[in-house]
Amino acid sequence: MDRIPVDETLLRNISLLSASSPQERRMVPRGTGSFPSVKGLEESMSLIKAIVFPDFFDSRRNNREIRSCYIGVNLEKLYSVLSQEIKRALRFDNTLEEDEVYCEACRLTLKFIDELPEIKRLLFTDVEAMYNNDPAVDNYAEVILCYPVVQSMVNYRTAHALLKLGVPVIPRVISELAHSATGIDINPGAEIGEYFAIDHGTGVVIGETSIIGNHVTIYQGVTLGAKNFTLDSNGHPVNIPRHPIIEDNVTIYANATILGRITVGRDSVIGGNIWLTQSVPAGSRVLQSRTPEPAGEMKY
Amino acid sequence: MDRIPVDETLLRNISLLSASSPQERRMVPRGTGSFPSVKGLEESMSLIKAIVFPDFFDSRRNNREIRSCYIGVNLEKLYSVLSQEIKRALRFDNTLEEDEVYCEACRLTLKFIDELPEIKRLLFTDVEAMYNNDPAVDNYAEVILCYPVVQSMVNYRTAHALLKLGVPVIPRVISELAHSATGIDINPGAEIGEYFAIDHGTGVVIGETSIIGNHVTIYQGVTLGAKNFTLDSNGHPVNIPRHPIIEDNVTIYANATILGRITVGRDSVIGGNIWLTQSVPAGSRVLQSRTPEPAGEMKY
Amino acid sequence: MDRIPVDETLLRNISLLSASSPQERRMVPRGTGSFPSVKGLEESMSLIKAIVFPDFFDSRRNNREIRSCYIGVNLEKLYSVLSQEIKRALRFDNTLEEDEVYCEACRLTLKFIDELPEIKRLLFTDVEAMYNNDPAVDNYAEVILCYPVVQSMVNYRTAHALLKLGVPVIPRVISELAHSATGIDINPGAEIGEYFAIDHGTGVVIGETSIIGNHVTIYQGVTLGAKNFTLDSNGHPVNIPRHPIIEDNVTIYANATILGRITVGRDSVIGGNIWLTQSVPAGSRVLQSRTPEPAGEMKY
Amino acid sequence: MDRIPVDETLLRNISLLSASSPQERRMVPRGTGSFPSVKGLEESMSLIKAIVFPDFFDSRRNNREIRSCYIGVNLEKLYSVLSQEIKRALRFDNTLEEDEVYCEACRLTLKFIDELPEIKRLLFTDVEAMYNNDPAVDNYAEVILCYPVVQSMVNYRTAHALLKLGVPVIPRVISELAHSATGIDINPGAEIGEYFAIDHGTGVVIGETSIIGNHVTIYQGVTLGAKNFTLDSNGHPVNIPRHPIIEDNVTIYANATILGRITVGRDSVIGGNIWLTQSVPAGSRVLQSRTPEPAGEMKY
Amino acid sequence: MDRIPVDETLLRNISLLSASSPQERRMVPRGTGSFPSVKGLEESMSLIKAIVFPDFFDSRRNNREIRSCYIGVNLEKLYSVLSQEIKRALRFDNTLEEDEVYCEACRLTLKFIDELPEIKRLLFTDVEAMYNNDPAVDNYAEVILCYPVVQSMVNYRTAHALLKLGVPVIPRVISELAHSATGIDINPGAEIGEYFAIDHGTGVVIGETSIIGNHVTIYQGVTLGAKNFTLDSNGHPVNIPRHPIIEDNVTIYANATILGRITVGRDSVIGGNIWLTQSVPAGSRVLQSRTPEPAGEMKY
Amino acid sequence: MDRIPVDETLLRNISLLSASSPQERRMVPRGTGSFPSVKGLEESMSLIKAIVFPDFFDSRRNNREIRSCYIGVNLEKLYSVLSQEIKRALRFDNTLEEDEVYCEACRLTLKFIDELPEIKRLLFTDVEAMYNNDPAVDNYAEVILCYPVVQSMVNYRTAHALLKLGVPVIPRVISELAHSATGIDINPGAEIGEYFAIDHGTGVVIGETSIIGNHVTIYQGVTLGAKNFTLDSNGHPVNIPRHPIIEDNVTIYANATILGRITVGRDSVIGGNIWLTQSVPAGSRVLQSRTPEPAGEMKY
Repeated sequence: MDRIPVDETLLRNISLLSASSPQERRMVPRGTGSFPSVKGLEESMSLIKAIVFPDFFDSRRNNREIRSCYIGVNLEKLYSVLSQEIKRALRFDNTLEEDEVYCEACRLTLKFIDELPEIKRLLFTDVEAMYNNDPAVDNYAEVILCYPVVQSMVNYRTAHALLKLGVPVIPRVISELAHSATGIDINPGAEIGEYFAIDHGTGVVIGETSIIGNHVTIYQGVTLGAKNFTLDSNGHPVNIPRHPIIEDNVTIYANATILGRITVGRDSVIGGNIWLTQSVPAGSRVLQSRTPEPAGEMKY
Repeated sequence: MDRIPVDETLLRNISLLSASSPQERRMVPRGTGSFPSVKGLEESMSLIKAIVFPDFFDSRRNNREIRSCYIGVNLEKLYSVLSQEIKRALRFDNTLEEDEVYCEACRLTLKFIDELPEIKRLLFTDVEAMYNNDPAVDNYAEVILCYPVVQSMVNYRTAHALLKLGVPVIPRVISELAHSATGIDINPGAEIGEYFAIDHGTGVVIGETSIIGNHVTIYQGVTLGAKNFTLDSNGHPVNIPRHPIIEDNVTIYANATILGRITVGRDSVIGGNIWLTQSVPAGSRVLQSRTPEPAGEMKY
Repeated sequence: MDRIPVDETLLRNISLLSASSPQERRMVPRGTGSFPSVKGLEESMSLIKAIVFPDFFDSRRNNREIRSCYIGVNLEKLYSVLSQEIKRALRFDNTLEEDEVYCEACRLTLKFIDELPEIKRLLFTDVEAMYNNDPAVDNYAEVILCYPVVQSMVNYRTAHALLKLGVPVIPRVISELAHSATGIDINPGAEIGEYFAIDHGTGVVIGETSIIGNHVTIYQGVTLGAKNFTLDSNGHPVNIPRHPIIEDNVTIYANATILGRITVGRDSVIGGNIWLTQSVPAGSRVLQSRTPEPAGEMKY
Repeated sequence: MDRIPVDETLLRNISLLSASSPQERRMVPRGTGSFPSVKGLEESMSLIKAIVFPDFFDSRRNNREIRSCYIGVNLEKLYSVLSQEIKRALRFDNTLEEDEVYCEACRLTLKFIDELPEIKRLLFTDVEAMYNNDPAVDNYAEVILCYPVVQSMVNYRTAHALLKLGVPVIPRVISELAHSATGIDINPGAEIGEYFAIDHGTGVVIGETSIIGNHVTIYQGVTLGAKNFTLDSNGHPVNIPRHPIIEDNVTIYANATILGRITVGRDSVIGGNIWLTQSVPAGSRVLQSRTPEPAGEMKY
Repeated sequence: MDRIPVDETLLRNISLLSASSPQERRMVPRGTGSFPSVKGLEESMSLIKAIVFPDFFDSRRNNREIRSCYIGVNLEKLYSVLSQEIKRALRFDNTLEEDEVYCEACRLTLKFIDELPEIKRLLFTDVEAMYNNDPAVDNYAEVILCYPVVQSMVNYRTAHALLKLGVPVIPRVISELAHSATGIDINPGAEIGEYFAIDHGTGVVIGETSIIGNHVTIYQGVTLGAKNFTLDSNGHPVNIPRHPIIEDNVTIYANATILGRITVGRDSVIGGNIWLTQSVPAGSRVLQSRTPEPAGEMKY
Repeated sequence: MDRIPVDETLLRNISLLSASSPQERRMVPRGTGSFPSVKGLEESMSLIKAIVFPDFFDSRRNNREIRSCYIGVNLEKLYSVLSQEIKRALRFDNTLEEDEVYCEACRLTLKFIDELPEIKRLLFTDVEAMYNNDPAVDNYAEVILCYPVVQSMVNYRTAHALLKLGVPVIPRVISELAHSATGIDINPGAEIGEYFAIDHGTGVVIGETSIIGNHVTIYQGVTLGAKNFTLDSNGHPVNIPRHPIIEDNVTIYANATILGRITVGRDSVIGGNIWLTQSVPAGSRVLQSRTPEPAGEMKY
């Protein structure tokens, strides 16, 4: 069982698998460098978590001097790992010359590091929001250690910052890392305010052009999606605003589906399993009218 | 790309990120020790799986003498790893003095190990239930190797046992490990009887105060949730019984949503996509009355 | 905290945990060899990904000579790892004598390797389909790097090929690896044509006897399930065709549930949240009639 | 720096390096299987150390029940790893048919395991001898933890046992592992009695046909070598007894060189830097006559 | 080949190997805790190298702020790893009560950390001395990267400091780690001054009670040994001063052997292969008188 | 024991250890990049061994097509790892501008790869020579697997080729890796012909300007050293030819010391423990005249 038999069939399979298909050839952005690596981006996210929650994912220190040692070391590692991945991603940006890529990657990484204090501030508002929403949690630490939304938001807020800096491809990979771990799928293009909470979360989808205010809470299975696509002349869908706007202080219960460029006005509540495709004004309470129905559906 | 440039900006970022925010300060339970580590708890769960399913996740032996060697070694490792994590978690228990923590952690770990034979017995009832529910499976071994519900139930039954022993925080982390891997989110506080089966499972949510009898089967996307929260005088939600009671021999099909402290009587069937907020008696069959509807909705 | 105290209780626990329960004894297929290992199958899937997408998960080369070196090396590793796992799985096949297992495992592994060029071709149609469906993606490379459906389809198409070769157990384990990572649960028994796309994907369930044509697109939360089971004389469900047939060019939107051995005719569109249990002809558009309803349900 | 340029030169280098030289072709013992792996043999030696010194290299237990768990688990691992390496080594044995190799490897591994209790007994005599020789050591535990001779003797006694069982090649590899770590080069063919001690040890060479009695002590840089070789008709040196016989209770001080098939009689002492090529009777004290010399050589 | 056959023989072997021999029982210092682990001490030495040569074994920074971050983080790691090992080693100290061990281990680790700046200073004098002795080296960096004496002296100066603090066993293990890697065997009890250089080094032995001044240089194969042992009434050798005193500015060439409590006066040179057992005054040049001899020994 | 106490002492220690000493400042070659990493060079040497002995350290294949796949993949990895290390080493070359370093590193790595077929040819002559010298070895394969001289010569021939290409520092590090593993210390500057054999080897030292012909054999402890140094006006030793020239077909037995720029004529034999500081003509046999002496030194 040690060794594959080497014969005509094997050599033909190698040859077939080495040929690039027409799709593959179209796929290459340019040049021959490597693509961004998932492993490098996972390491970047671990470092970012250790930087913004230094007591949880790296080490715990009340003392500020030692804490700053850890943060300095982690920032240097993050710079080294992330700038390498950004360099690879910039091959997807056709406006750059080959010899500009290196400098641009360094510049963008430093710009991103400048965003980290604000990202940290925002993440702690999310933690506070989650704490305030769940009777099953006793303190902030438990939220950070146990709630999938925290991992989801670290990745989203990082991906969103990188997207705004113009980094290609990487934001989407970072989103998918969180999607895979939590079942929460937030497109990095979405705009999300402070104090955002998601409970349970599996199956949540937040589309690319969604805009979400402050103090918004959503539950598992909620979709903020597009109703349909506008196609361009080649039949490829056009990337225009097509997802909902959710204003401040809105709560959306489990499995609600909100589709299209509509607005859910501030202080509204959208009930579980609701299917919503038109705007509702501030203070709305959109609930299942079916509550009485089940009795009628029962057979016993 | 090797090294981050060291300048005023970098030093200011380090300083900003080292400062603890007001939220962080509130968050600390006490002292300066480490928090429980996710890695240590993952290792504990691997050891528990190797102990309860010794033929699957460690090694296969018909011979009882050698099998007991593996179990002895794994129990010693489990004691060492888990007692360390419990010690860290006990910092969240304000009723303990610092110097009681060590002994209490050892005591609780031994107590938990005493529960393992019963946990093993319960898990094999779950395996048997799963086998009896799925026409696509040929034997028990395949259930243990392939079904996400098995991982989910190992973690739930462990987390539940630790919660009942009074271990803080860790039960929730263990639940989330399974939630992340399977998309099944079972709060460790739920009470679940023997022969429990979940098929597919993604999106299942079982809330903290749910009570589930024996021989219950549920499918993907089922929510056993709270209808709404009672807030205390500070506006923080109160942790009271608020999730459903599911009696023996109940089957709940995919994406059904059952909310509030209601009771689903024994031998009932809840159909797919049902939204249920009131109790139903034993032997109920709550089904979609919509089956005829779609025809009316079709346009072709 | 280093060492577990060795006393009567510990020795009794070891003894209890070493005994095999009646279920365990029934579970053993035969002999004393190891079960297939999840780790070995994960490694096999990594090698298959590196072989079919050589620029992404291993290294990027325009040059065909070097690319073929990588593919040759990875094929040899795949042969070694996968044949070992297949040998273990063949213990579940009662028609083989012990001494036939080794040769059969080698033969099946080589047969599977012969399928790889076709699997690669099919996967690139899936990538192209996904690219054509999502306005948020800029090029093929991004699809391969970022979309969970790609991981899902690599595992499904591998598992399906192994199942058709008659390999026991392993196809199901491979499916579950993708299910865990993506929330997309495709039974390896399902038949799926070319150009298959799934967007977001969390909560998708595609049952064992589903048949899906070419150019089909589905969204998150879609279930292609069984309506109910036929039980055999022992009360065990019978494995007969019981899942839907989806013809070419069908699109099924989020959270639609399609149950039973019904046919969705070609060029149909099934809207989000639709519950469908009867066949619909070609060109159908089954949409929510509820779109006007929500207004009626709102209270503000 | 990521990628090697692919050009004619590279392809020619690959081609040149892929060709096997005449020496390589002569080198192959037969067939196409793998050679024994150094990594597998290192792992075997770690397991053997954990088995014979269970308190040091694995875990410490006074309790015999738990200790036997560790030993059972380690014996099973050792069997699995070492039998694989022996199978590979048996390709060097031309008297075996291809299909006998597997059974012979299992048989030899079990035979070796039967030797382990005696190997353990001998090693503890070596530890005791070392303890009795060095004023700088306080207890037996320190000898096992700190003295290179212990590693050297574990490997020698293992290699010697395997050699006597007729295992090809592996004994020499195991010797070299100890030689590399300690600078002590003991050929596995040497015969060494009980209570053998080496202090410091760097540069010690003990040739293939050396015979050493009980309670012998040697120091760094001692050579027990051959004086010259007898060549066969092809000019290849003949493997006949050509190294010294050292009888019981002999001490040999640093850098002494003892060459040829001579006998050092029991209770003798050989002084540092001595060059000895003829037998000496029991009770000899062979010392440097140069002690007075240095004064004569000084210039100041 | 997967599994060892379980039969009477195996169970008897497990039983034999689990029994502790009389030597083992004598060996135990007390209690049941673990012995110091070689792995933990290797990690400690890596951290110490990263702290004293921060540009070489960890990262290179001209900037003092970032460098201090690395040193802070490494000191914390060192404290955690080394204090654990010291706690284990203190079981060998019979003057301590069980409950004093923990505090004493912490205290000794902190004391050792206080020595690190002085150890660093001394090591840089050794580097400078080496640089000044070898025409084949171009700069200080090359000395640190390439010369085995540097590894040897890091371990010696660490082991010596720990020995002076009264830490049992560990100093000897640390010495042996360097001995194994370099062939240079320096007993941690030796006293060695500043600017110490060893070239090549294989086979050097420096005994426990040696005293070496400043600016001393030695070459490969040099022994500073004991001439003979004084035995106590039990026949166990007594640990009294028995190795040479080497004063400042002495050079000792390759393979010289200097034995007994003699003094080599300052500014002396001891030639290669010299055997010296009596003191020589300052400024001596002890050289081979044999230089003319070889001619006489030649036969051609 | 988890956390170091943070107090004034700790902060002062961090500060002291972060300051660079005068020696450190002199040490920096230039700029702020990293030094070559030992880990990267170890990986390079593993790849080179897998390339020149493809059946031993990587995989065994008689088939040339598959073998060339392994070699292609390993050459690409070697290029990537080694060029990175060479780039770091070129900081030590003051004649290069910062922006020339990258191209020069790539150029030198390719040049080195062009040398690999010749290095492979030479290494197989060394294997053949070793085989012809040792009666204890049965076939070529055993030489490659077991003899430290093979590791020593792979590293020497690599280091020598890199040195001749003008790569700074790295050749010396590679030499030291072999010195540490084998106790054989060959300076990369030495010139060594074909069919070179070293038996046992511990303690061998071959100086920087040694010149060794073809078919030379040496034994453990042999030194080819310098007699004394010429100092420049700063008192730093000058790097001029100062080590022996050993002509073809010379054998040098254990622990012989040959010093200074002398010539050992072809076909000579130098006996064990000989101290030689003047040239000897071709065909000399320089042997110990002491053979009769020991009798005179014996006391019994």
